Amino acid sequence: MTAIRSSLSHLECSKCEAHYDADVIQHLCTCGAPLLARYDLPKAKASLTVSGLARRPWSLWRYGELLPIRDPARNTVSLGEVVTPIVPLTRHGADIGIGGLSCKDEGLLPTGSFKARGAAVGVSRARELGVTSFAMPTNGNAGGAWAMYGRRAGIAARVVMPKSAPAIHRFECEAAGAEVTLVDGVISDAGKVVAKMVTEAGVYDASTLKEPYRIEGKKTMGFELAEQFDWRTPDVLLYPTGGGVGLIGIYKALLELREIGFPIDKLPRMVAVQAAGCAPIVRAFNAGLRESQFWNDSKTAAFGINVPKALGDFLVLDAVYATAGCAIAVDDTAIAASRHRVAAAEGFLLCPEGAATIAAAEELRKNGWIRDGERVLAINTGSGLKSIP
Amino acid sequence: MTAIRSSLSHLECSKCEAHYDADVIQHLCTCGAPLLARYDLPKAKASLTVSGLARRPWSLWRYGELLPIRDPARNTVSLGEVVTPIVPLTRHGADIGIGGLSCKDEGLLPTGSFKARGAAVGVSRARELGVTSFAMPTNGNAGGAWAMYGRRAGIAARVVMPKSAPAIHRFECEAAGAEVTLVDGVISDAGKVVAKMVTEAGVYDASTLKEPYRIEGKKTMGFELAEQFDWRTPDVLLYPTGGGVGLIGIYKALLELREIGFPIDKLPRMVAVQAAGCAPIVRAFNAGLRESQFWNDSKTAAFGINVPKALGDFLVLDAVYATAGCAIAVDDTAIAASRHRVAAAEGFLLCPEGAATIAAAEELRKNGWIRDGERVLAINTGSGLKSIP
Repeated sequence: MTAIRSSLSHLECSKCEAHYDADVIQHLCTCGAPLLARYDLPKAKASLTVSGLARRPWSLWRYGELLPIRDPARNTVSLGEVVTPIVPLTRHGADIGIGGLSCKDEGLLPTGSFKARGAAVGVSRARELGVTSFAMPTNGNAGGAWAMYGRRAGIAARVVMPKSAPAIHRFECEAAGAEVTLVDGVISDAGKVVAKMVTEAGVYDASTLKEPYRIEGKKTMGFELAEQFDWRTPDVLLYPTGGGVGLIGIYKALLELREIGFPIDKLPRMVAVQAAGCAPIVRAFNAGLRESQFWNDSKTAAFGINVPKALGDFLVLDAVYATAGCAIAVDDTAIAASRHRVAAAEGFLLCPEGAATIAAAEELRKNGWIRDGERVLAINTGSGLKSIP
Repeated sequence: MTAIRSSLSHLECSKCEAHYDADVIQHLCTCGAPLLARYDLPKAKASLTVSGLARRPWSLWRYGELLPIRDPARNTVSLGEVVTPIVPLTRHGADIGIGGLSCKDEGLLPTGSFKARGAAVGVSRARELGVTSFAMPTNGNAGGAWAMYGRRAGIAARVVMPKSAPAIHRFECEAAGAEVTLVDGVISDAGKVVAKMVTEAGVYDASTLKEPYRIEGKKTMGFELAEQFDWRTPDVLLYPTGGGVGLIGIYKALLELREIGFPIDKLPRMVAVQAAGCAPIVRAFNAGLRESQFWNDSKTAAFGINVPKALGDFLVLDAVYATAGCAIAVDDTAIAASRHRVAAAEGFLLCPEGAATIAAAEELRKNGWIRDGERVLAINTGSGLKSIP
């Protein structure tokens, strides 16, 4: 196989549309909004085709034209990213009135969560741009992934996380030799510590959406699921939403594919699922707003989605509105119940965040938002084995 | 894609070569030895070809001619078995003098270990044969996998494990609704309890090698690695050996592939890696014997390979002798050190059993058994995330 060439062209502000050079280190736009990678789509179209894909390795790197790595042979940092399977949840689906229920099991990725996608692509591109150290706040899974991929790339990692984060994440980070700082509070408090490290120590800021490439890794969920559904994407897609980058990424991916002529007739209605104890995007959605407000005293056992204010909240809401989707919160009791019921009905152990999407599906079916016979895909963002009582 | 048809022909005793009907439930031979699935290889050869494989889904089911499921469309029980990646361990390899070191990361399978292979194929075939309940002893990973796949198939599971097994395994089994019995002692003590259940309650005996199909799942490691190495298999293959079914299975797979004309010129030298605190096969190997003796008071932190006497010990030793391989024990200190060093050098978290193979590789390179420039593949049998201190 010949090497796949990136058709990355530039970075564009997600708010004011200012352009930036993609081949030097960039963070936020001067207006404060995240930058998004843009591609020369006609160029991508020339080599990224439905039939051509059939001959490529079965991993996220198969979509290389729409990934930002210029020299993959030299810079790719990989721990063996598999294309995660679509797992039918037929029995539980029948129980809740959704025959066409399935989930994409991101728990099978290296480091046990979808965060591996962002880390694989984000760290590869950071290495390509000459980054030698980074800092990031995390609820755990992103820290573990970035610590491992960072170590593999020879990039020094500083990871800041809430004291209350599950111990497994700290273990992962330290095993990879990352410098771990624990803070009282939630991820936004960890973010303040990282901001200080960035200012004072000059390390690369790898915070969510503060560098433009993590989302490019996350968006491969969208490429994969589109291909796995033979380009006829599901009617409804449920995503457990903390920072929301996965949801934004999937939306971006589907638009890019459609733009280069892949036969995607319509986008799924995208559902941002949050925990009742931390639901800023749901609150904004219910009020018809385009941005969220900081959620005070946030709390949920679905630790990965305890994000009181996401930098990309407006992009999440854009995707939800544009696809006629919605945002919905479920409480921790419902999350635990769904996790239990899916394991008992399907032999499939969801992570709490994934279980939230299933609880939300049940709710949305009950109130009629999910209609009879619709195909519903939930994203199980991590391995259930990382969340053991 | 048209359905792939199994070319299963019969079962054959691994010792006395007696034949048995494969289409009714069978356990051990009347002589007491395990039965192995045999295939109509000329028939398999007609459709299982190097070029044909390129068009098949990237999962263990792609080798269906050499799997025992007669009616995959009806009976396959799947949680999304991915082809596990080969992960280069180049930096640590250089540290220990093995430039060509890599591992196959079985931790990315559903339920977080290679046991998913045995469960996927074993449970599918059990369902096909009309099994409605089973019992099995386990050190943990097999129990978790069989409980989950069993639940998915609607087959009732009884799992018996040592009290000292890591709590995560009990959680998995119970989440899947299995009936869990804890015993004082090691897996052989659990085996006695299972034997009683089988006799008294008439449940299907799913103990290692007491039914003929779990090994057929495990052997897909061999198919995959051969294909991933483009049929030029590595020089040395290290396997963490408890019951040893994976090693036997890989050997069986490579012989089958060669028999149907795949371009496998030579088999890897197979190394059975054990823990110093439980090394019955190493002791037998060192004495030039063909079977092992029960290892008293076995003990190791690499819980998965605490098996004092394997039913298939003679098959492990056969494979080791036939490939000019060896058997070697490493102590828990060396295992922990290798795990730590690989995480720090590679950003890759091995399970303890996988770490044992890397410690063994280091030892075998030091004493010259692994030669300059050889390609060495270690099997990391499970996710490091299932073994957190």
